[in-house]
Formats: sequence, structure tokens, C-alpha cells
Amino acid sequence: MESYDKHDAPPAGNLGSFTGLVLLIQGLGLTAVILVAVWMGHFREGFAWTSDPAKEFNYHPVFMVIGLIFLYSDAILAYRVFRNVKKMYIKIVHGFIHLGALVFASVGLKAVFDSHNLAPTPIPNMYSLHSWLGIITVVLFGLQWLIGLLTFLAPGLSQGLRTLYMPHHVFWGVAILCMAAATALMGITEKAIFLKSTIQYTEKSTEGLVLNSLGIVIVALVALVAFVVTRPEYKRQPSPDEDHIQLMG
Amino acid sequence: MESYDKHDAPPAGNLGSFTGLVLLIQGLGLTAVILVAVWMGHFREGFAWTSDPAKEFNYHPVFMVIGLIFLYSDAILAYRVFRNVKKMYIKIVHGFIHLGALVFASVGLKAVFDSHNLAPTPIPNMYSLHSWLGIITVVLFGLQWLIGLLTFLAPGLSQGLRTLYMPHHVFWGVAILCMAAATALMGITEKAIFLKSTIQYTEKSTEGLVLNSLGIVIVALVALVAFVVTRPEYKRQPSPDEDHIQLMG
Repeated sequence: MESYDKHDAPPAGNLGSFTGLVLLIQGLGLTAVILVAVWMGHFREGFAWTSDPAKEFNYHPVFMVIGLIFLYSDAILAYRVFRNVKKMYIKIVHGFIHLGALVFASVGLKAVFDSHNLAPTPIPNMYSLHSWLGIITVVLFGLQWLIGLLTFLAPGLSQGLRTLYMPHHVFWGVAILCMAAATALMGITEKAIFLKSTIQYTEKSTEGLVLNSLGIVIVALVALVAFVVTRPEYKRQPSPDEDHIQLMG
Repeated sequence: MESYDKHDAPPAGNLGSFTGLVLLIQGLGLTAVILVAVWMGHFREGFAWTSDPAKEFNYHPVFMVIGLIFLYSDAILAYRVFRNVKKMYIKIVHGFIHLGALVFASVGLKAVFDSHNLAPTPIPNMYSLHSWLGIITVVLFGLQWLIGLLTFLAPGLSQGLRTLYMPHHVFWGVAILCMAAATALMGITEKAIFLKSTIQYTEKSTEGLVLNSLGIVIVALVALVAFVVTRPEYKRQPSPDEDHIQLMG
């Protein structure tokens, strides 16, 4: 990957394509949320809390997609989008959107465990590859958030340690997003195969097309977020009075 | 991500961790191939060609993992591993391993289409999210290979165009590998849910543990390949008589 000198301005003209990409990402993120809400709300008979475990399950895909796909993507992008805002404010926005993602993910996890445990015939937990990778992803996400908080927001840590950790924070941020997406794709696949004959999946029913499209939209979204984050010309440029590390955010 | 000046030597001591990571990646790649071969060969009753479509299917996961996970990963790493070899030789090795990956993937695709079309009751093709993302991945992989060949191996293209295309080649190389991994995870999930009661998946049977482990090994492998490829200090350094672009490979 090419690199620009750290104190160059971004090449002229690039911010136009940047804005287009960010809008496209927002569109894809909203489309994913709408598709999963329509799938669960319309095709899968809607939502209920603990009174109806089967319908409580339906919160699981919706909350996970809102938290670990849509909000997570936007939290990552916050660093690239708010170019002219004071560094500390962006850090706080970045951390808070991630915290929101974690809250949605936690409620989404409670929904799926409840739906298994409260079912008339309880369903075993944590046997599938989807559940294994899902738990690994949520734990890594939580750790990344905590380490990020301690490293970049808590006072006292030396600039040298922050600089050393930053590329790992960026790499694992994108890697965990990819893991969240892969887990979502497996969750969609599980549900689709469970429902295979009910929804006439092999005959390309509307419900089948909706859930397949949800998967493809998630892949496109995550690929674009990774692209925007790894392009050096889209990086936030520091104002002259900011310190060096801000460039790497 | 941090960047070193293009003409710096790699920081001392890093090549030790590099060698360890490359060995770990080889170990994970071989483990994935062994796990999928044991799953299909031992637990799923082994292999046959068109004479037995159900057993022909079993070639599909094995060939796809060998091609689009193991060989693909090694083709990417070739640029980082062969540090002291003439640039043109590495290009050829890189291209040939990718070609091998494409051959394995093509045979793997023929196996699954045959297993559907030649079954006593034919099974529909291309209805699942796994198949959709799989076809997109193979097409993008083929295009990336072709464009890479035309850009970097065919004579005549200007250095400027090569330099412009290189970061996109690197980005999409890793992105398509991630898509291949996500497709593999969905394929494993599909098969596991189809076989759910047969293999007592919910009771954590040996077969269930084997296929879940296969998925986790694939995730670890791809995460490490992406890590090695995106770390600037692991990049191949050019010898003094090589031109500028070689740094970026």
C-alpha cells in the first residue's frame, strides 16, 4: 500500500469520492437494517419479549445487525468523517458509538439465549460454528473497546505506547468487523436452512431473496468500510497544533 | 497504519516474528486441509467421481479449501517470503500458485454442480447465500488474476499505471480471500445444519467439533495472512538495482 508523507495535505479531488463512498456505506448500512427488520418483522411473524421465546429470537438478528454491523461501521468511519472537529471530541464519539454497538449486541445475545432457554423444549446453546465465532467476536470487540479506552482516552499513557498500539487497534478493528460480518452470514445461512422447506428457499421465494440480499449487502458494506479505512488519502489530517499520533487515527 | 520510509531497511528483529507467523500460517493451512479431508473422507463416507453424486459432493469442500484458502494464502505470502529472489521469479510463483488455486476451485465447483445435477432427484443450483457469495468470489478472483497478469507480467504497461493499480491489487487480494473464507464458513454451516440430527450437532459430537474447528482454523488463518500482508515492516525490500514499484508488491 502506498503511503503519503505524513504532513502532506490529502491530494485534491479525493474528498469527493470519499463523500460518495461514505454516503454509499450509509445507504448499505440502512438497507441491511431494513432488510433484517423486514425479514424478522414481516416474514418471521414479528417480535415479542420473554412471553414468546420464538418471537423473542427475532430480535437477535435485528439487534446484532444494528450493533455489530451498522453502528460498528459508523464508529470506525467517525474518524474519517469528522475531519474538522477537535480530536478529543472524535475520540469520544468513536468510543460512544462503539458502546452503543456493544449494548445492542448484548440485548441481541440475551434474546437468542432466552429464545433457546425459555422454549417449551429448550434448545441447546453454543453448539454451532455461528455461535462459536459469534462469542469470539463479541469478546474480542469488548476487549478492543476496553484496551482502546485505556490506551487512548485514559490519561497518563505515554505517546510512544499509543503510537505502538495504534496500527494494531486499526487492524483488529477492521478484522473484528469482518468476523462480525462472517458470523452474520452464518446466522443468515443457519436460519435459511432451518426454514428451507417452509420458505421454499430452493425455489427462490421472496423471503429467500430478502435474506440472500441481506447477506450480499453486509459483504458490500464491510468491504467498502475496509477500503475507506485503509486508503491513506482518506485519513484525517491533523491541524498544525495537534500532535503526531492523530495522523494515525 | 504506520509507514516506514520506502528506503529504510526493515527494523531489526522483526524477521524472527515474521518467520514464526509464516510457519504458524502454514500449520493452520495444513490443519484446515486435514480437517476438511477427514470430515469428508472419514465422517462423510469418502469420495467418488460422477458415478456417485453424493460422494462426488465431498470433493467440493476439500478442493475449495485447498484452492481458495490454502493455496490462495500461500500465493499472497509468496511476496513476503521470498525476499532475496529476483522480482520476476516471485511474480511468476505468485501467479502460478494463484492459477493452481483457480484450477482446484474449478474442479471443486464442477463437483458440487455434478452432485446436484446428477442426483436421482436433481437438487436446484444457486439458491443459497453460500452459492451467491461463492460465485461472486470466484469471478472476482479470476478477474483479479487476469488484471494482475495484464498489469504486472505482460510487458508494455507504464510504471505509473502499475503503481496506481498496486494498492487496489493488494486490497482486493485480501478482501477476496476474506470473501472466500466467509463463503467457506457458510458452506460448513449449511452442511452442518443439513446433517444436524444425523451427526447430533447439538450434542457436540466429534463430527460437529471437527467441522466447527475447521471454521475457526480458517478464520485464524485468514486473519494472520491479512495481518502479515498489512504490516509495513514485513514488506519485501527491494535490492538497490530494482525499481521503485517492487517495494509495493
